[in-house]
Amino acid sequence: MSRNLRNKLWHGFAARRYSNLSSPKARQFTINGDRLWQDIHYTAQWSAPGSTSDAGGLCRLSGSKEDKLARDWFAEQVHSLKPKSYTVNGTGSQFVTFGGEDNSLPPIAMGSHLDSVATGGRFDGALGVIGALEVVRSLKEQDIRTRAPFTLINWTNEEGARFFPPLGSSCVYAGQSTVTAAHESKANNGSGETLGEALQSIGYVGEGPNTFADFPISAHFEIHVEQHTTLEEAGKPVGWVEGWQGIDVFEVVLRGEDGHANTYPMFGRKDSLVGAGKLITELDKLAYSSGGYTTATNIQSGPVGSCNIQSWTKLVFCNMHHELDCLTTMEKAIRARAQDIAARHGLELQISRIMHLEPGNFWPEAVACVERACGDRGIGAKTLTAHDSTMTTLVCPTAMVFARGKDGISHCAKEWTSKEDCAESALVLGRAVLNFDETLK
Amino acid sequence: MSRNLRNKLWHGFAARRYSNLSSPKARQFTINGDRLWQDIHYTAQWSAPGSTSDAGGLCRLSGSKEDKLARDWFAEQVHSLKPKSYTVNGTGSQFVTFGGEDNSLPPIAMGSHLDSVATGGRFDGALGVIGALEVVRSLKEQDIRTRAPFTLINWTNEEGARFFPPLGSSCVYAGQSTVTAAHESKANNGSGETLGEALQSIGYVGEGPNTFADFPISAHFEIHVEQHTTLEEAGKPVGWVEGWQGIDVFEVVLRGEDGHANTYPMFGRKDSLVGAGKLITELDKLAYSSGGYTTATNIQSGPVGSCNIQSWTKLVFCNMHHELDCLTTMEKAIRARAQDIAARHGLELQISRIMHLEPGNFWPEAVACVERACGDRGIGAKTLTAHDSTMTTLVCPTAMVFARGKDGISHCAKEWTSKEDCAESALVLGRAVLNFDETLK
Repeated sequence: MSRNLRNKLWHGFAARRYSNLSSPKARQFTINGDRLWQDIHYTAQWSAPGSTSDAGGLCRLSGSKEDKLARDWFAEQVHSLKPKSYTVNGTGSQFVTFGGEDNSLPPIAMGSHLDSVATGGRFDGALGVIGALEVVRSLKEQDIRTRAPFTLINWTNEEGARFFPPLGSSCVYAGQSTVTAAHESKANNGSGETLGEALQSIGYVGEGPNTFADFPISAHFEIHVEQHTTLEEAGKPVGWVEGWQGIDVFEVVLRGEDGHANTYPMFGRKDSLVGAGKLITELDKLAYSSGGYTTATNIQSGPVGSCNIQSWTKLVFCNMHHELDCLTTMEKAIRARAQDIAARHGLELQISRIMHLEPGNFWPEAVACVERACGDRGIGAKTLTAHDSTMTTLVCPTAMVFARGKDGISHCAKEWTSKEDCAESALVLGRAVLNFDETLK
Repeated sequence: MSRNLRNKLWHGFAARRYSNLSSPKARQFTINGDRLWQDIHYTAQWSAPGSTSDAGGLCRLSGSKEDKLARDWFAEQVHSLKPKSYTVNGTGSQFVTFGGEDNSLPPIAMGSHLDSVATGGRFDGALGVIGALEVVRSLKEQDIRTRAPFTLINWTNEEGARFFPPLGSSCVYAGQSTVTAAHESKANNGSGETLGEALQSIGYVGEGPNTFADFPISAHFEIHVEQHTTLEEAGKPVGWVEGWQGIDVFEVVLRGEDGHANTYPMFGRKDSLVGAGKLITELDKLAYSSGGYTTATNIQSGPVGSCNIQSWTKLVFCNMHHELDCLTTMEKAIRARAQDIAARHGLELQISRIMHLEPGNFWPEAVACVERACGDRGIGAKTLTAHDSTMTTLVCPTAMVFARGKDGISHCAKEWTSKEDCAESALVLGRAVLNFDETLK
């Protein structure tokens, strides 16, 4: 039975099996919204100088000095809560486990990432980790015991902003990649640096468990800012995330011929940058004609100079759609256009799909726990992108909590979620975990 | 009287004033084509490793280790010919002067450049310097005395390949820039390095004369490979260069807004790379509709990452045309298209013309000397790009000798001029200098 079919059936079961109310422990649980808000802004100090930081955003790239400082702070905070164990794994992820009443059960995990894109806001990632930390602090303070142990996770390189591919550690955890491959993740700026080198340089390559097989968990829950406007338009501070849209990432290399920019006849030129320009133009059209999303995210071209026809251009772009069929149609369409352009300009074309995430749904039993925790304060929504949860969902019940964002903006200094909505999302996370814990009885 | 009008009148005079024959000394002069050919290929060893070098081309960027080695070799060669003076000036150009019968006359100069673009061939630049060196060697061996002294020049950074702008030293010589400005020429790869730093690092910032005012010359002659197909189609090994087409170089900066590549709605995006893609597409159209040439030569875009809308893109492009009016029309057209695109995509547009070279003609009295040296072995042609001679022509009689190239290819490992054509071009250079020297009587 395919997971999609199973998910559809589960929706029916879930509606019957659970009440709309959270568990008694969950209803009793509260969190400290002031402390959460302070920590989000306190940790934003670890941000590389530049426009995004100046504008109140965050630049904390994986394996950077700032990433190390945020990790060190996280380690200090969790150590003060006396965990059962604290480990750093081979891809740098921090796993912190607290005991439950029955430590033979696999822990319930709460995780996200403290690292960011180059032009990040203060919430994408950080809210997920600091919100989970706030849940643990509050559970401790309120002396609420869970049946299962629980684990906080700060995943490495979810964004793929400095090193490609994204989901750098969670994809290893879900058995989709290896520690070695993750270490070899190459810098998007073409410098040749790798994630492994960067993690070594900040002292964050550890001996902790790397995979679900090494360290099974009962479930994974994650808070994330919505990055879209569903909640905002509905006037809801929180949401349960039912699934995600599909994403294909492509790397295109166009190779033409070297020549003098001023003198070589226009007829017969093999100009790779003209090819790339036309492909970007076609991509923009494709988004409208397909009802999906397209973005060219990286371009590099050479030879570098001031009077050379560009003989090679590398372009990375992504297509997104909620429907797998449509995503496939988009791929066919853009491959055909790329071939036409290459043929027209005498270019050699290499086009590789370097990431493929089919659209899908999270586990209904986990989503139901979030939905019950939201109550009428939330609504269902879909995420338009990948998260560490889209990897853990391959191996265990997984669900996400959305916090309302402003204007759908993220990966930008303008990204914003109010103090109240941050607090509400952490409350929902804690209650969802307690709801899930109840199902383990 | 404008120079253009003066040039037109001169063409009439020139036809009447000179015979079609070279001067007696010029007719007597011969060169050693074997030695020239050997040196072109011997010096090609100083080329940075990579695809162009592997394919038999040349990568000798200004201020690089390879540039230093070629300069050192040139210095050694000229010292063995016992020059009257050898100097390196503030922008690294090597000036080597040999005495004439009347050293009160300003010397006749022969120059070009030993540095190359990143994907250069073995002839663009090198043939001009080594051809001139061969002329000097042959004059010495054949004991042919000139009335005026003569100066060999190896100009720095003609290409602008590593550091912008091009014509880095000759534009200072012609009073169009300053040594300080030339030193501040910025790296095209965005590294922040400058030409001044690179020249210092190879020990080629000297005390020699920087300007025509400091060191006047009677004339400047330069051999260059044609980089087009006029000679090849006419079946002529050499040519006299009557003028050049106009060139405008523009830097465009498009600024949009940061955002998540996967999640931000397509509506309302301010994607600078989409804007640049459309502008490149329009540029390609402009070449065809205007009858001119256009090339996008450099693109940089950010933020670097894998899932960010590109919020800034820098694009450098050039327009070329034989007619100034048409060049102006091209500028107006592309500025209008850039504004349309920026408006359509909500982008902030900065567009600066960073180089402007009006089409023009070389000095008829100098061109006539080359024409007489070519005889019926040559034809008249125009260069489609700028050379150090397009700067010296602003201050003194200047003309160029074309050597036939293969398929119009240059700035490419495939650039090719035969041994016989190289030799013929050096012979024409020497004879043109001797013809000009005769006019100084």
